[in-house]
Amino acid sequence: MIELRPVVFVIGILLTILAVAMVIPAMVDIAVGHPDWQVFLVAAFVTLFVGVSMVLTTRTSLRRFTVRQAFLMTNLAWIVIAVFGALPFQFSELELNPVDAFFESMSGVTTTGSTIIVGLDFAAPGILLWRAILQWLGGIGIIVMAVAILPMLQIGGMQMFRVEAFDADKVLPRAAQIAGGIAIIYVFLTGMAVLVLWSLGMSGFDAVAHAMTAIATGGFSTYDASVGHFDNAGIDWAISVIMVLGSVPFVLYLRVVRGDLQTVFADTQVRWFLSIVFISVGLVALWLYYTDLMALPDALRYSTFNVISVMTGSGFATADFGRWGSFVVTIMFLLMFIGGCAGSTTCGIKIFRLQVLYATAEAQIHRLMQPSGVFFPYYNRKPIPDAVATSVMSFFFLFATCFALLAVALGLTGLDFVTAVSGAATAISNVGPGLGEIIGPAGNFATLPDSSKLLLCLGMLLGRLELFTVLILLAPAFWRG
Amino acid sequence: MIELRPVVFVIGILLTILAVAMVIPAMVDIAVGHPDWQVFLVAAFVTLFVGVSMVLTTRTSLRRFTVRQAFLMTNLAWIVIAVFGALPFQFSELELNPVDAFFESMSGVTTTGSTIIVGLDFAAPGILLWRAILQWLGGIGIIVMAVAILPMLQIGGMQMFRVEAFDADKVLPRAAQIAGGIAIIYVFLTGMAVLVLWSLGMSGFDAVAHAMTAIATGGFSTYDASVGHFDNAGIDWAISVIMVLGSVPFVLYLRVVRGDLQTVFADTQVRWFLSIVFISVGLVALWLYYTDLMALPDALRYSTFNVISVMTGSGFATADFGRWGSFVVTIMFLLMFIGGCAGSTTCGIKIFRLQVLYATAEAQIHRLMQPSGVFFPYYNRKPIPDAVATSVMSFFFLFATCFALLAVALGLTGLDFVTAVSGAATAISNVGPGLGEIIGPAGNFATLPDSSKLLLCLGMLLGRLELFTVLILLAPAFWRG
Repeated sequence: MIELRPVVFVIGILLTILAVAMVIPAMVDIAVGHPDWQVFLVAAFVTLFVGVSMVLTTRTSLRRFTVRQAFLMTNLAWIVIAVFGALPFQFSELELNPVDAFFESMSGVTTTGSTIIVGLDFAAPGILLWRAILQWLGGIGIIVMAVAILPMLQIGGMQMFRVEAFDADKVLPRAAQIAGGIAIIYVFLTGMAVLVLWSLGMSGFDAVAHAMTAIATGGFSTYDASVGHFDNAGIDWAISVIMVLGSVPFVLYLRVVRGDLQTVFADTQVRWFLSIVFISVGLVALWLYYTDLMALPDALRYSTFNVISVMTGSGFATADFGRWGSFVVTIMFLLMFIGGCAGSTTCGIKIFRLQVLYATAEAQIHRLMQPSGVFFPYYNRKPIPDAVATSVMSFFFLFATCFALLAVALGLTGLDFVTAVSGAATAISNVGPGLGEIIGPAGNFATLPDSSKLLLCLGMLLGRLELFTVLILLAPAFWRG
Repeated sequence: MIELRPVVFVIGILLTILAVAMVIPAMVDIAVGHPDWQVFLVAAFVTLFVGVSMVLTTRTSLRRFTVRQAFLMTNLAWIVIAVFGALPFQFSELELNPVDAFFESMSGVTTTGSTIIVGLDFAAPGILLWRAILQWLGGIGIIVMAVAILPMLQIGGMQMFRVEAFDADKVLPRAAQIAGGIAIIYVFLTGMAVLVLWSLGMSGFDAVAHAMTAIATGGFSTYDASVGHFDNAGIDWAISVIMVLGSVPFVLYLRVVRGDLQTVFADTQVRWFLSIVFISVGLVALWLYYTDLMALPDALRYSTFNVISVMTGSGFATADFGRWGSFVVTIMFLLMFIGGCAGSTTCGIKIFRLQVLYATAEAQIHRLMQPSGVFFPYYNRKPIPDAVATSVMSFFFLFATCFALLAVALGLTGLDFVTAVSGAATAISNVGPGLGEIIGPAGNFATLPDSSKLLLCLGMLLGRLELFTVLILLAPAFWRG
């Protein structure tokens, strides 16, 4: 039997934070005189009550988490927050049914960005802000989880990014300080993004909402047409940059603050990330230009924005790239799986895993040529430990398997092939839109059956928690203790 | 510089065999009075001349192959045979252009079964037989390669199936004897298949052609409607069984001959293979039944045939499963990748690799739970060596990467999303048909642009030679010596 008290304690604290966050949209709705402020306040009270009760009933002397407790806590935290985050959706004037409300909330906290709400342009400001807040909180939660928890749990090669590694480098000595430093940088980047977007012509409200969901690579917008609503090249370029800023390892910003720019640009993960972005943008832009769909400046602008949006798993759209021809659709489908760097707000397979897989395959090919030779795969100029390589390769296999099973299950709920396959990809990689008429960049998840929506929620959670964290709960040995 | 003489010598011998095989369709065309017999005889002479010249100019004292020579020989053998095998297609009354002829020939020898010929029902018997012969020779070539060459080269975990392993078991002592034994079994199974299909009502000619392409899990038929032409439940069931017989490791048949049935049924690879077949057939049959598409007996018959045909990479069709709804299309798409057992005529990822990947991921999950514990993945009740696990996992990554790049490249040639993605899958897994209107089970590859066809040929070769064999040629170190 797993001792649950420390688990409940932490989740209680997280719910308390969530309750406080609910007060912000309440105040906005009060300011504009929208009746939904009552919904937010009631939801805040309920969440606060549950959260504080959990904290008070489990208050114990602080102790180290066991591995099992850490796994259970991580799973429960995201599920419970998604459930309470859904309250405003269900009881506001949108009156979403419970499944839709949970879907929207899960899509928010996992920074996926798939939406079932039609008519964002006429929605109350409180609910729009709540969507942005969920993604923004999800974003910082993910970074902290990636820096503090996943490396300790050795999830899918994340042990390469243990906080201890930074001790030697003396960037900042303690984990709490690192987490605090990252939070300050997150707030700072968001603030800068607000100013930039505002100066480019967005209203203050839209600037705040889009800054929060762009830095979190989340993708919720305040308009049905997403960022395409503004039809403003400056805004497109600015959000492209903000999404990239949200996709690099946040610990690197700590180095930048210390003036260590060189290490950042020498980081192979960032270099691979930017290389894949540049190559994909270039290919798509050239295709748009040569197929006479756009002039070169527009081709660059639209390809940059949409490639970055899909690859980083943000999911904003400025155009329906489903109409750009099969080559673009195919490349976008594959970019969905890639994601950004470890320790960022992005999801997907992530760049460092592709690097480890590539290095391992390359070493393997050299071994075939010289069976008697000894070849090590390298990452960032250091040999990759066997345990890390195995961990990453198992992650890749499980990622492909979960994607495949999710696609089959979605097919079973009646979705067509393209919707099922791209829906599985977009959920497990936390991207947002899928492909095709229904859930493509110009579509919406509202019309899917409830069973599909719940499966997509499972996919989002699996992807967000890097698969292992969820799958370990399926092992009987986990529960036997 | 790699010494090419032993490579040229072996390819010369293979071309000589191919030339002799070309005489058979020539004789059939003579028997029915079709003028194409001249084409086959001329092609046979050309091939024989080249083959014998190669043998005579490189005859040396027999010596061991170096690793580099073995890789080069394997690649060149399949390419050169596909080139010479294309001669009858180009110069017969079909008058295929060179790309189409090469595509059909490559699809034949790799036992893929994608076809660009429309009007098989009215084609001359010689050319129909030639297609069957290409697949049949390809099938035995693959088995011998999988037993004798790939394990020695340590390709993608195939080192687990080294011939030396059989020494200990004393099934048959020497590699040549094993190869000979397998060839006899291959001929015997083909003969039995001919008798069964003939007794079920096929003409003698059709029985021979279908027996050859079914045991090779190739999928070329003598009719545009494939096996659906016969509309005969007995034939459907018989070919289903033949395809399964072609998908199990042929070395196991040697044990059966020795009366060792128990080891065969205890072989975990065969059990996994049959389990995946049964589960997939069951799911598809239930879907067909519950969606009121078919009565239960028909649902079982059509789902058994088409699931086995796609999963084993045969590619025969008895119905257009593209019309069976999105669930079936999704499951068929995923089955394409799986394939059959190692050492059979099938392609794809193969069952033993899925077992190794699953066992490794499972051990990984246990390691996460007990970071201090020691967990080994097992295959067939033996611990999997690290080198094998890494090899298999690298294979899986390269398989996914090659599939993805091939799909993007096919998109670049203008194919729509479903055609590009399923085309890449069907080529790299040597299945045959893809999905969608164009290359689906009711479609044909004829209308694709030449660039797509050449890319698909590359995909077939990559998949057939288990990726590493081809990719190693891209490493500069391979050529530096």
